Amino acid sequence: MSSVGTFSLGASEGSSEKIVINVSGVKHETHKSTLMTLPGSRLAKLVDTEKPPSEFFFDRNPEVFAHVLQYYRSGKLHCPTNLCGLLLEEEFAFWGVSDTDVEPCCWATFRQNKDTVEALAQIKHLVEPGQNDQSSNSRAWQQKIWALFDNPYSSITAKVIAIISLFFILLSITAFSLQTEHIYLSQSHQLWTGNSSKNFAETFPVKSLDMVEIVCSIWFMIEFVMRAVSCPSKCRFFMNVMNIVDLLALFPLFFRWCSSMYCCKMMGFLHIMRCIRVFRIFKLMQHVFGVRVLNHALRASATTLCTVPLVLFICTLIFGTMIYYAEVDSNDFHFINIPSCFWWAVVTLTTVGYGDMIPISGQGKLVGFLCAMVGVLLIVLPVPIIVNNFIKFSSLVKTKYSMPRKKEKNSVDAVLSSSA
Amino acid sequence: MSSVGTFSLGASEGSSEKIVINVSGVKHETHKSTLMTLPGSRLAKLVDTEKPPSEFFFDRNPEVFAHVLQYYRSGKLHCPTNLCGLLLEEEFAFWGVSDTDVEPCCWATFRQNKDTVEALAQIKHLVEPGQNDQSSNSRAWQQKIWALFDNPYSSITAKVIAIISLFFILLSITAFSLQTEHIYLSQSHQLWTGNSSKNFAETFPVKSLDMVEIVCSIWFMIEFVMRAVSCPSKCRFFMNVMNIVDLLALFPLFFRWCSSMYCCKMMGFLHIMRCIRVFRIFKLMQHVFGVRVLNHALRASATTLCTVPLVLFICTLIFGTMIYYAEVDSNDFHFINIPSCFWWAVVTLTTVGYGDMIPISGQGKLVGFLCAMVGVLLIVLPVPIIVNNFIKFSSLVKTKYSMPRKKEKNSVDAVLSSSA
Amino acid sequence: MSSVGTFSLGASEGSSEKIVINVSGVKHETHKSTLMTLPGSRLAKLVDTEKPPSEFFFDRNPEVFAHVLQYYRSGKLHCPTNLCGLLLEEEFAFWGVSDTDVEPCCWATFRQNKDTVEALAQIKHLVEPGQNDQSSNSRAWQQKIWALFDNPYSSITAKVIAIISLFFILLSITAFSLQTEHIYLSQSHQLWTGNSSKNFAETFPVKSLDMVEIVCSIWFMIEFVMRAVSCPSKCRFFMNVMNIVDLLALFPLFFRWCSSMYCCKMMGFLHIMRCIRVFRIFKLMQHVFGVRVLNHALRASATTLCTVPLVLFICTLIFGTMIYYAEVDSNDFHFINIPSCFWWAVVTLTTVGYGDMIPISGQGKLVGFLCAMVGVLLIVLPVPIIVNNFIKFSSLVKTKYSMPRKKEKNSVDAVLSSSA
Amino acid sequence: MSSVGTFSLGASEGSSEKIVINVSGVKHETHKSTLMTLPGSRLAKLVDTEKPPSEFFFDRNPEVFAHVLQYYRSGKLHCPTNLCGLLLEEEFAFWGVSDTDVEPCCWATFRQNKDTVEALAQIKHLVEPGQNDQSSNSRAWQQKIWALFDNPYSSITAKVIAIISLFFILLSITAFSLQTEHIYLSQSHQLWTGNSSKNFAETFPVKSLDMVEIVCSIWFMIEFVMRAVSCPSKCRFFMNVMNIVDLLALFPLFFRWCSSMYCCKMMGFLHIMRCIRVFRIFKLMQHVFGVRVLNHALRASATTLCTVPLVLFICTLIFGTMIYYAEVDSNDFHFINIPSCFWWAVVTLTTVGYGDMIPISGQGKLVGFLCAMVGVLLIVLPVPIIVNNFIKFSSLVKTKYSMPRKKEKNSVDAVLSSSA
Ligand SMILES: [K+]
Ligand SMILES: [K+]
Repeated sequence: MSSVGTFSLGASEGSSEKIVINVSGVKHETHKSTLMTLPGSRLAKLVDTEKPPSEFFFDRNPEVFAHVLQYYRSGKLHCPTNLCGLLLEEEFAFWGVSDTDVEPCCWATFRQNKDTVEALAQIKHLVEPGQNDQSSNSRAWQQKIWALFDNPYSSITAKVIAIISLFFILLSITAFSLQTEHIYLSQSHQLWTGNSSKNFAETFPVKSLDMVEIVCSIWFMIEFVMRAVSCPSKCRFFMNVMNIVDLLALFPLFFRWCSSMYCCKMMGFLHIMRCIRVFRIFKLMQHVFGVRVLNHALRASATTLCTVPLVLFICTLIFGTMIYYAEVDSNDFHFINIPSCFWWAVVTLTTVGYGDMIPISGQGKLVGFLCAMVGVLLIVLPVPIIVNNFIKFSSLVKTKYSMPRKKEKNSVDAVLSSSA
Repeated sequence: MSSVGTFSLGASEGSSEKIVINVSGVKHETHKSTLMTLPGSRLAKLVDTEKPPSEFFFDRNPEVFAHVLQYYRSGKLHCPTNLCGLLLEEEFAFWGVSDTDVEPCCWATFRQNKDTVEALAQIKHLVEPGQNDQSSNSRAWQQKIWALFDNPYSSITAKVIAIISLFFILLSITAFSLQTEHIYLSQSHQLWTGNSSKNFAETFPVKSLDMVEIVCSIWFMIEFVMRAVSCPSKCRFFMNVMNIVDLLALFPLFFRWCSSMYCCKMMGFLHIMRCIRVFRIFKLMQHVFGVRVLNHALRASATTLCTVPLVLFICTLIFGTMIYYAEVDSNDFHFINIPSCFWWAVVTLTTVGYGDMIPISGQGKLVGFLCAMVGVLLIVLPVPIIVNNFIKFSSLVKTKYSMPRKKEKNSVDAVLSSSA
Repeated sequence: MSSVGTFSLGASEGSSEKIVINVSGVKHETHKSTLMTLPGSRLAKLVDTEKPPSEFFFDRNPEVFAHVLQYYRSGKLHCPTNLCGLLLEEEFAFWGVSDTDVEPCCWATFRQNKDTVEALAQIKHLVEPGQNDQSSNSRAWQQKIWALFDNPYSSITAKVIAIISLFFILLSITAFSLQTEHIYLSQSHQLWTGNSSKNFAETFPVKSLDMVEIVCSIWFMIEFVMRAVSCPSKCRFFMNVMNIVDLLALFPLFFRWCSSMYCCKMMGFLHIMRCIRVFRIFKLMQHVFGVRVLNHALRASATTLCTVPLVLFICTLIFGTMIYYAEVDSNDFHFINIPSCFWWAVVTLTTVGYGDMIPISGQGKLVGFLCAMVGVLLIVLPVPIIVNNFIKFSSLVKTKYSMPRKKEKNSVDAVLSSSA
Repeated sequence: MSSVGTFSLGASEGSSEKIVINVSGVKHETHKSTLMTLPGSRLAKLVDTEKPPSEFFFDRNPEVFAHVLQYYRSGKLHCPTNLCGLLLEEEFAFWGVSDTDVEPCCWATFRQNKDTVEALAQIKHLVEPGQNDQSSNSRAWQQKIWALFDNPYSSITAKVIAIISLFFILLSITAFSLQTEHIYLSQSHQLWTGNSSKNFAETFPVKSLDMVEIVCSIWFMIEFVMRAVSCPSKCRFFMNVMNIVDLLALFPLFFRWCSSMYCCKMMGFLHIMRCIRVFRIFKLMQHVFGVRVLNHALRASATTLCTVPLVLFICTLIFGTMIYYAEVDSNDFHFINIPSCFWWAVVTLTTVGYGDMIPISGQGKLVGFLCAMVGVLLIVLPVPIIVNNFIKFSSLVKTKYSMPRKKEKNSVDAVLSSSA
């Protein structure tokens, strides 16, 4: 290359020795003075001698080095968007450039893939549920029974057990809801007519419903005991909310014999106990995939999502107070105190609008107008919060499924350990 | 190029022979040891001789090769986002690098365009409907009649027939809904007044509505027979839900003569038969484009969307039970049994709020507050699920429309066959 | 460069003459046979001689040429995502490569920027309204009056006129809505009490409201005449919906004197005329910016958005029919005919739920449950359709505003003319 | 490099002297005539001599220069999407190319990162609240007290004070809402029964509630005084809406002693004063993070969001007028005047549907159908507006949190100052 007629520009004349840096075949030329702008870095140390060689060879990524060299020139570390952030991180580390020097404008780009990898590691249990629950120190029969009752996809017997369990849950809830009708009827009947002549006729269905309930309870007890005994980690088993619900839902069975005597007294306590039974229905959701994605998205947006009840609560207070003072002078006997006004505010804000309390006066209707309008906006508030996370999780789950298995484990671990 | 004063770094000294790989004019330099890190690959085989030549020439994509070479250096295969995944796949195959070696962070990028091509192939029938229905083995007159009755865009006559058909559908439904009024009136009239003196006056409109219904039914019968006879594939014709609805909707016509005798007896059966007629309205949707995109988006999100009724069902159970126990002690005669409480829960959760059942007690209103709030969140749940898929489909359809026709066929097939 | 020990691969031996294509300093090397794969293109023609020169120089974009060369090699034209589609289009045209050869996977990328430019051209009138309305052949005083009455941002007088106009619109609507009360009252009063003794007391406010209305009407007439006279294009003026509304809203003023005589007869016709007056309120929206963006987004999604009423209509038919047959045997006197059932279906599907018609029987409540659930999903349907377009338009408008003015015009025109 | 057999193309023959521009090792070759197309630029000036040197060396970014050179060739300045806009801006400035020459198609890409940096600067106070409030000229004890009462995260004592304050807010509101019940009861009691015998029994809770209110008010007064005294900027303190609410909410305490005498007279004024107290609940929201993000997103979309009430207002006017004329002839005594029809329109448009006013006639139900349908679409309108901004802000906040601290300050300032 002839240097005849060469025109050079861009550096102070004092140290304008040209240095060639051959990175994997791509020859970058720059001035020595440029490389000296970052004194602590690898290149600065190399050229900081009396007579540096005119060419350096590095077997590294030439495309990333172009950006590193630009950092030497301009003092600003911008990242290209077409290269993976993890690759940039590795190369930056080699050239002695700190991650924290990345400009704010390019930071999101730089972090993006690292975040993706971390998020993929987090949703691992979502895609392969129950895999990590089995610790190796439990015995073989324990593991077999645990798989039988906990993972319906493990075998055909497990699937049959899951379907039986589901059948008993639905049967139990049906019996439970039909039963209440009779309890109420017999109670109110005695209250009103005073006699119990019709009691005999109603005894039969009540008895049969009792029978169904006892059978269901026995099944649930067996299932609970089996799961409790075979569970690899007793501690985590009793920390699980679903298992506590299972246990509490069994209580009415034990209290049955005693409660028949002094039925009316413990009514309140038993009501709550019976109420718990209906939460068993949550089991139904455990094995539906869509619910799991949604559940994850909802949990991720929980901190932001909890603002919705808060805003609703505050709006209830404000509109409840406003409607009270707006209707206090009219002859409307609905808005007699602020707590009942809160009920009106809730019913209007959620746009349910039962119609049991309706403002009559002009200013009351104005408050009603404002309240309904705010309500419409309130309904819309949680949309972006969930949309955001749901779309993110959906694409992550899709990526996870389409990804080949073999490399996954070690590379994710490597990223996580390097970021720790 | 003078090698005087050259400084080299980045590989162990033992095998630091520099090798030049000229890929279509771009000269990549690396050490022999670097290429040996992936023993089975094309380059490793080439250099694994006693005296490899100092320069290799390949007429391949130089930009992709830079990333392949980086894989040799760092052991991690990152993909650039600016190159098409299908191009990368092809080049990776040439260099003997497996797709499954792509890092998790870059997997989504790598797959993106392949997914797009596959999705484009799937929505083909959406953009060009009815094209693939015509098999070649049916006779010419069959094809003509089929086009006449099934594809309104095939000719002007076909369009006229479609409009006549639409007119008869709307006429049939109008007649049907007006008729019920008279059936009810005459029934209730006889029930209440006991005489049938006014029957004569009402006979006239009933008769004329009957006339209209018979004319409509005859048209539908003709249309059905024509379509059934001319359909290229009889099997697919009778598997189609719309055609079965058509057939069932014709039943009341056949039963008309018999039913006039023992009208009251078969009422229940006829009611269901008549009910089916209204489903003919779905035909109205078939040729609206927006509906087809929406329909596709809804189907794609069906598995996730089915969680909404499930969640609604579970919330109904839980809030129905809660309101029952909350209101059991108050003098409210609405919440007398749990099944009717379920009705309240549904009406409140969907924010319809008829106002026929309203909690009175304090704890009942608290349950109502919770129920309405959960309802507001429930309404919002399906939004992200549909948003996600709708946006995806809309952009796909837009791409499909703007795309030139000629290349489409073979390239999509090529991708699909290579991925199979 | 020594060719000793050079290893060459990737083309058939027959015509493996290496050819160097120097594109603006970047030297691409390839085989002659590779260039011959696309016979009609510029490069194929150049090398298709007995003795082609060993090096070609082109002063074109080297990065795009790399992709063109890849097309020669693999027969597939992939586009890089980091380069602008318009740049690619220009370079492809130079190299004799057709746009239609772009692969389906890269088509969306290739079209993206062209679509953006076209969309920017379309929203021009959105950002700079009224600019193109002024044709040059109208006289100066016409343009001045037109600007005065039509563009409130043109001068301070224009702003004052706009505010006066707004004030008269609000006054007119207030007078109009207050007046109806008195019309009704006097009507019903005469109907009930038979006398008209109280009429005198009510005459005063009615008179003053009449006065207000006449004053408003005169203002609107003046405004209408001024705008009609000064409008540069008479044809477009009378095609505008808002101007027709203005004209029709003036009719009641003309009919006032006659109508006082045979008031009751033309009541129906006058009602509709008066009704039109309220549409003047749309003028209020013309100058709010957010409304214009929303309006544009709504119009762009109109074809898809019209499916919502269609789906609602179909659901009304189906659920109306279902509830009729579900409740036909119960003693509920609300669901007496199908048309009134349609009303129930609409009220439930939109989750308004007035509570005037409520299913009583079990199967009726089941239908109500389904109807309310479908209603909740229906509410959600239009969300993605509008979201999609609104986000697109918002970003376009933002881009338009931040863009420098000078270059805009000619470059957009150039793109549009080249695409035509 | 042999120039034998070299073929050159792409420039007019007159000035086809090749010029080599070596930008940091990458050699770009072009014709002199190409560089002369932009006369004022740096390169045009350099080559505009009789005998320009054949090679120029610049120590600048070679990748960006390729795009600058393309601008010389084609006259259009397209930007690559993989490079940061700020880097492009810097390099363009060096080469004498104006930002405003960027093509419309690439403008959004070019501006993107600059917008990000500006938006990051704006949300600074969101992530680190209260940091900039402390000016340096206030004394040490002032700063301590200010931190104690205003920033709950500054110390444990501050956290305790915040919790006490929250407790008093909730206590005050509870006392306030319970109190109204008694005021009303005693008022109505006296009104109805005429005597005040039961007054004694109710005096006790009223007295104790009064006591609670006084204690709360004293706490709020102390808190207000402390904050007012210690606030670094008195001016900004009294401009803050929350502080004015605090002050106004203290007024009822001062009026208490006087108001006990002529209670009934100032009732109206006191009602408003008491009403203000409930706004204290907004303090509860100040320290919830999600609310702050939402608040910011809502504020950013305020201009567009204000179209929703406007559209609702216009729809109310139109449907109110329509239902009046639709129901004017039926015997429905609800729709007696247009203002009450507006109430019906609001209740239906927001889908609240109290059921106090229901159309009876056919055309009235049709208007109701349209109104409910428009209402459903209206609910959906604000979704895209908020979604858009919420997603943008969420990602910005996430970026801000993950970003290293040190570089942030100066680089943001640099960008802002350069853009000013
Ligand atoms: K409602
Ligand atoms: K309602």
